[in-house]
Amino acid sequence: MENRTEIATLGEFGLIEHLTKNFETHNASTVVSVGDDAAVIDHFGKQTVVTTDLLVEGIHFDLMYTPLKYLGYKSVVVNLSDIYAMNATPTQITMSIAFSNRFSVEALDEFYEGVYAACEKYGVDLIGGDTSSSQKGFIISVTALGEVEPDKFVKRSTAQKGDLICVSGDVGAAFLGLTLLEREKKIYLENPKIQPDFEGETYTVQRLLKPEARKDIIEFFAANNIVPTAMMDVSDGISSEVLHLCRQSNLGCRLYEDKLPMNNDMRNAAFKFGLDPTVCALNGGEDYELIFTLKQEDYDKITLNEDISVIGYMGELEEGSKIITKGGNTFNITAQGWNAFVK
Amino acid sequence: MENRTEIATLGEFGLIEHLTKNFETHNASTVVSVGDDAAVIDHFGKQTVVTTDLLVEGIHFDLMYTPLKYLGYKSVVVNLSDIYAMNATPTQITMSIAFSNRFSVEALDEFYEGVYAACEKYGVDLIGGDTSSSQKGFIISVTALGEVEPDKFVKRSTAQKGDLICVSGDVGAAFLGLTLLEREKKIYLENPKIQPDFEGETYTVQRLLKPEARKDIIEFFAANNIVPTAMMDVSDGISSEVLHLCRQSNLGCRLYEDKLPMNNDMRNAAFKFGLDPTVCALNGGEDYELIFTLKQEDYDKITLNEDISVIGYMGELEEGSKIITKGGNTFNITAQGWNAFVK
Repeated sequence: MENRTEIATLGEFGLIEHLTKNFETHNASTVVSVGDDAAVIDHFGKQTVVTTDLLVEGIHFDLMYTPLKYLGYKSVVVNLSDIYAMNATPTQITMSIAFSNRFSVEALDEFYEGVYAACEKYGVDLIGGDTSSSQKGFIISVTALGEVEPDKFVKRSTAQKGDLICVSGDVGAAFLGLTLLEREKKIYLENPKIQPDFEGETYTVQRLLKPEARKDIIEFFAANNIVPTAMMDVSDGISSEVLHLCRQSNLGCRLYEDKLPMNNDMRNAAFKFGLDPTVCALNGGEDYELIFTLKQEDYDKITLNEDISVIGYMGELEEGSKIITKGGNTFNITAQGWNAFVK
Repeated sequence: MENRTEIATLGEFGLIEHLTKNFETHNASTVVSVGDDAAVIDHFGKQTVVTTDLLVEGIHFDLMYTPLKYLGYKSVVVNLSDIYAMNATPTQITMSIAFSNRFSVEALDEFYEGVYAACEKYGVDLIGGDTSSSQKGFIISVTALGEVEPDKFVKRSTAQKGDLICVSGDVGAAFLGLTLLEREKKIYLENPKIQPDFEGETYTVQRLLKPEARKDIIEFFAANNIVPTAMMDVSDGISSEVLHLCRQSNLGCRLYEDKLPMNNDMRNAAFKFGLDPTVCALNGGEDYELIFTLKQEDYDKITLNEDISVIGYMGELEEGSKIITKGGNTFNITAQGWNAFVK
């Protein structure tokens, strides 16, 4: 082969764009294709929403500190989160796994217990999948399908200038759970006699290992006649996701540091590690909260919900994407989210 | 862990049954779930059909003799084959891949060229996916969606006693393509100066590396008002698939050796390797033909199509599943198809 471009030079999103740029759709039923949290298919009475994720041991999870049951649960939840991020209701999943011969049936049972628990909790059906061997490690592929009333789905590219930027729950805790578990792993590998110290860290660890998808927020929208102008889930971090919303909507934005929702346990964990909680909140991934934009006139409707914070607003493209600190300084937002191709 | 059951003791289908036995469906829209070629979802005007496959380097394919472009093509085709096997029309796919750092962008481009070619040929849309790193090797996960008129889908479990067993095209050639490529690989590894010898083997090699899905057969059914009573695709071999149809329909069967459709190049290749062509036709996998059962009164309709062979009929459960040889002897059919868990 004459040319060799390293994949790392493109990054994950660049690679997806690169690989899919020549694809055209053939079917009238394909309403939304590559480029959003999930795809939308029109099937007359309702529209079907589809999303998929591939999770690889050693890249996306570490079985040294991830119980298989939680892993099964999380594998489902992260896909459902993408369906909710389209303002849709998940209805079915397929689950494929491949594993080396170090896994026993009991280990897979444990994994499927978690899958089953998530399906129960969110009311989705497991409708298919595939299982096979792998040469090394555990590989998980999940596809989730969901339904939405015709054209009620919410994309990333439809935010308008002046819209409020809102986020559900709190952010940054999963990253601190990961930091903690990685530290304990290192200590354990150096001296297996030392027991892990998770005191006061239940929240951050749980946020990493057993996240939930924000079904309640979508139900709140429906009950209160709210349709966000744009939406996505927070898997790579607020900074990264806000820049996606800006780029795809062709706008800029202003965020306010003092509005970023943080949990107290997360703040304490950050201080313990000598990290700035704001940096963790902006750049920590895997929170699976929803970030969405809203017409200003809908502001009154969301004040009913204590679990939604307004963190800024969408502005002109030319004004850039910036964050205003507590001290009144203004900085450009940069995506420092997780990138699977740069190690 | 106290108990440890080796996965090999269950086998692939046993494992799937084991893992999914506690799942119940929640949504009225879930018409067909785990246990067939694909799942069916009711969406008012049409029903959506979903199937998924996970392909792992070193387990399902060998990049030493599989051009990436063909691999991309085949990854799509094997999933479309499952959709056709439901008597449905594929409409969309999602494609997720994970790969180690030995792959370049150009290599992935080549792979996606094949994906793109298959999408074009079969008129399906690539609507999503996921890309990430792997610790080792290339991993591919494809999900295909299709449409079918309400309740026109064809399952495996609905064959009736006396129905004709039919198969499209010819069988066994892909297995001989594999045998040939494995031989050439071994020779090459022993002495890299010896060039591979594929003389007269184009057909068998092509059947393995670039299979096609039987879109034409489904179109023939529609044009001639034929609805098979049961159907599946031939991925593990005729023996294995016939036993699936029998078990799931709670019936037995009779096959006739002299009716098994074989290509001449395949026969010659078998003789060259000292193999019995009938054994190759029965147990060789990856042909991606359709095997289906038909009411006897529909026999006249299929004689129009030279690419469909009647190979036997469904009988009583108590009479077993047997094959009658050219010499008039009767043998039990045993599944010797590919099993990913027993090496």
